[in-house]
Amino acid sequence: MTTRFARRMEALKASEIREILKVTQRPEVISFAGGLPAPELFPVKTLAAATQKVFEEEGMKALQYSTTEGHAPLRRKIAERMQATWDAHVTPDQILVTSGSQQGLDLTGKLLLDEGDVVLCESPTYLGAISAWNVVRPRWVEVPTDDDGMDPAALEETLRAYPAAKAIYVIPNFQNPSGRTWSLERRRRFMEIVEKHDVWVVEDNPYGELRLEGTPIPSLKSMDRKGRVLALGTFSKVFCPGLRIAWIAAENPAYEKLVILKQGADLQTSTLGQLQVNRYLEENDLDADIARILPVYRERRDAMLAALDVEMPAGVSWTRPAGGLFLWMTLPDRLNARTLLEECVRQNVAFVPGGAFYPNGGHENTLRLNYSNMPIGRIREGVRRLASAIVKEMERSEILEEVPATP
Amino acid sequence: MTTRFARRMEALKASEIREILKVTQRPEVISFAGGLPAPELFPVKTLAAATQKVFEEEGMKALQYSTTEGHAPLRRKIAERMQATWDAHVTPDQILVTSGSQQGLDLTGKLLLDEGDVVLCESPTYLGAISAWNVVRPRWVEVPTDDDGMDPAALEETLRAYPAAKAIYVIPNFQNPSGRTWSLERRRRFMEIVEKHDVWVVEDNPYGELRLEGTPIPSLKSMDRKGRVLALGTFSKVFCPGLRIAWIAAENPAYEKLVILKQGADLQTSTLGQLQVNRYLEENDLDADIARILPVYRERRDAMLAALDVEMPAGVSWTRPAGGLFLWMTLPDRLNARTLLEECVRQNVAFVPGGAFYPNGGHENTLRLNYSNMPIGRIREGVRRLASAIVKEMERSEILEEVPATP
Repeated sequence: MTTRFARRMEALKASEIREILKVTQRPEVISFAGGLPAPELFPVKTLAAATQKVFEEEGMKALQYSTTEGHAPLRRKIAERMQATWDAHVTPDQILVTSGSQQGLDLTGKLLLDEGDVVLCESPTYLGAISAWNVVRPRWVEVPTDDDGMDPAALEETLRAYPAAKAIYVIPNFQNPSGRTWSLERRRRFMEIVEKHDVWVVEDNPYGELRLEGTPIPSLKSMDRKGRVLALGTFSKVFCPGLRIAWIAAENPAYEKLVILKQGADLQTSTLGQLQVNRYLEENDLDADIARILPVYRERRDAMLAALDVEMPAGVSWTRPAGGLFLWMTLPDRLNARTLLEECVRQNVAFVPGGAFYPNGGHENTLRLNYSNMPIGRIREGVRRLASAIVKEMERSEILEEVPATP
Repeated sequence: MTTRFARRMEALKASEIREILKVTQRPEVISFAGGLPAPELFPVKTLAAATQKVFEEEGMKALQYSTTEGHAPLRRKIAERMQATWDAHVTPDQILVTSGSQQGLDLTGKLLLDEGDVVLCESPTYLGAISAWNVVRPRWVEVPTDDDGMDPAALEETLRAYPAAKAIYVIPNFQNPSGRTWSLERRRRFMEIVEKHDVWVVEDNPYGELRLEGTPIPSLKSMDRKGRVLALGTFSKVFCPGLRIAWIAAENPAYEKLVILKQGADLQTSTLGQLQVNRYLEENDLDADIARILPVYRERRDAMLAALDVEMPAGVSWTRPAGGLFLWMTLPDRLNARTLLEECVRQNVAFVPGGAFYPNGGHENTLRLNYSNMPIGRIREGVRRLASAIVKEMERSEILEEVPATP
C-alpha cells in the first residue's frame, strides 16, 4: 500500500463541523451546528424561470467552457453591488468569480503564503480559513479581539513582534464564529496601522448584508488606498449557496496572479451557474429578496437570545450579534465544549465546539450557535436542551473537582 | 504597493492557451487552439427539461449546501459508469465529485507533493497538469513516450534514477496534447513496473469515451491491485464542460484525505449542477448522446488529416489519433512554433505551440491542433492557412541560415 503523502497532510484533519453535521442529519436532532441559510427563503421559482431563459436564449454558451475571470456581465453587476454594499469603488476588471468564497481562501493562501510565513487573524477566526490556508503551512498568530473588533494596540505590537508578517485575515461584519462587528473607529485604526507595514489584508465579508439592526459600516476595502486589501464576497448567504458563486476583488498585480491560480485550481467557475445568477440579477431585485430574509433571521436571533436569557445558568455568557448567522458562547473555564457536545448529541441538540476556531488551540470552553436555519419553536426547545446539558456538565465538573486526583 | 507574494508565484505564468484564446476570439480567426467540445452537440433541451424537474421536485435542496463528497445518487451512477467505461471496479464511496478534472489535479498535487518531489510524466504532457502541480513546486522528469505510450525501459530506468519519485501523471487515452493512446501491452508493463516501486499514479481520462475507431482498452485503474491509481474522470467532453462536474476515484487512505483537501478548496461542487447531471443521467441515455458525437468528430478528424496530407510541405509530420480532440504536429527542428503562431495570427488561424506541454521546456518545433470544434469547411481552410504560414517560415528560416551571423 502506497501511503507517502505530502507533509502538509499530517496536520490536516477533517473539519469538526463536517463530522458533527453527519451525526446531526437525523431529523430528531436540533442542530445549531451548521451555517446554513434558511432554504424556505431561497427564490426557487424565480431562479427556475431565469434558468429556463438562459437555456432558451444562450443554452450552448451556458454549457461551454468560458473565461477564468468569469462572465463579464456578472462581473459588472458584482462591481456595482460592491459600491452599494461594501462602500468600495471596484471596477469589473478587478472581479474574479470564484467557486464559493472558500475558493477565495484557497487562492489567496496560495498567492501569499510560503511555509512558515506569519499570518495574523482575529481570535477566534473562521475555521474554513484555517483549513484552507493550512495547506500552505503558515504560522498563525492570533490578535486579541473584543466586541468592537481587533485590538489596535495588540495589532501594532504583533506587527512589531513579527515584522515579516505576510497577511491578516479578518471578517469585520458579523464574524464567523463570534458574531462580532468591528466599529468604524476600529476599522480606520486598523487600516492606518496596516498601511505602515508591508502586509496584505484578506477581508472576508459573507454576512455584511445580513444586518438585523443599526446602520452599515464601510468595509476595509473602502479605505484601501494601497491595493492591499483582497476582498472576498459571495452570493451564498443572501441568495443561495448551492450554486457556489462568489468572488474576489483585487487590484493588479495580485489580480492577474489570482487568475493564474484559479486557472490551475479549476479552470473556471460553472458557466451555467454564472449565467443563472446574472440573469436572476437582471430580472429580479436581490435587495428586495434580502429584505424578506432579514425579518425572519431577526426573529430567530431574538428568539435564541430570549431563550438563552431565560434558560442559561449563571457563569455562561454569549455575544449579541447585530447580524449574520451566529452567536458565540463562553462557558465557565472548567467546562469543555467537546465533552459537552457528546452529552448534547444524546439529548438531540448540536453545536460546534469553539476550540476548532483557534488555529493554535485552546479555548475549549467556547462554542458557536447558528440561529438562521430553524423555526423559533425548535430554537427554544434546542436552547432548553443545551442549557440542561450545560447544567449537567457543570454539576459533573463540580463533583470531579471535589474528588482528589489519584496518580 | 505591497508585492510580497509566495515564492511559487515566481514560476507560475499565464497559460499560453489562455492568452492565445483571447486573441483568437475574433470570428474571422480559425482556431485550432482550444480544446472545446462542439456546442451544437450539447443536449440543451433535454438538460433544460431535467433542470426544470430538479427545481420543481427538489428546489430547496438543490440550492442549499451539500456534502463535500458529492450527491450520493450521482456518485453511484459514476461508479457504475466506470465499470463500463474504465473496466474498473469502483464503489460509490470511492467517488469524490470535483469541480472539473482540473480540480482533481489541484487536489492530487496537494495530496501527494512536497516542494522538490520528483514527478514523472509523458513527454509531452497536459499543460493544465503542469500548472496545477507547479503550485506545490515539484521537479518534473519526462519519460520518453512513443505512439504506443510511455516507454517501459525508460520508465524503469527513470524510477531507478529517482527512487524517491512520488507520482506519475499519465493520460493513456487520446492524450492531450499528442492524441496518442497506450497499447494494452504497454499498460500492463507500466502497472507491473510501478507495482515494484512505492509511487502513486494519477490516471487522467477525459477523452476515453471519444473513441473514433478500434476497441476500448482497459484503464490502468482496472489493473490497480494496490490502490495506488488515483483516477480522474469528467463529464466535460462527453456531456458538457459548462457545469464543471467531474470526479476522482480513489481508495482510502487517499480518499478521505482528498475529501479534506476538497473541503478546504471549495467546500463542495455546485449542488444544483450535481442534481442536474444526476437527473439528466436518470432520464436520458448518455451513451446514445456520445454515439451522436462520435460521427461528427470522426468526420472532422478525417477532414483535418486529409487536408494535412494534401497541404503540408515535406518535413512536417503529425499523429493520427484514434479518438479524442487533438493531434500533434512536429515541424523541422529549425522552426519555432511560437514564431509561426505570430505569422498564423496575421493569417487568422491559431494553434497552441507545443513547448508549453513540456514541463522542462524545449521542443519548440511542435504544436497542438484541435479538430472537434469546427465544421469541416473551416478545418480545410484553416489547414491551408497553416500550411501557407509554415511554408513561409521555412523559407524565411532558410534565408536566415544563409545569412552569416553578425556580432
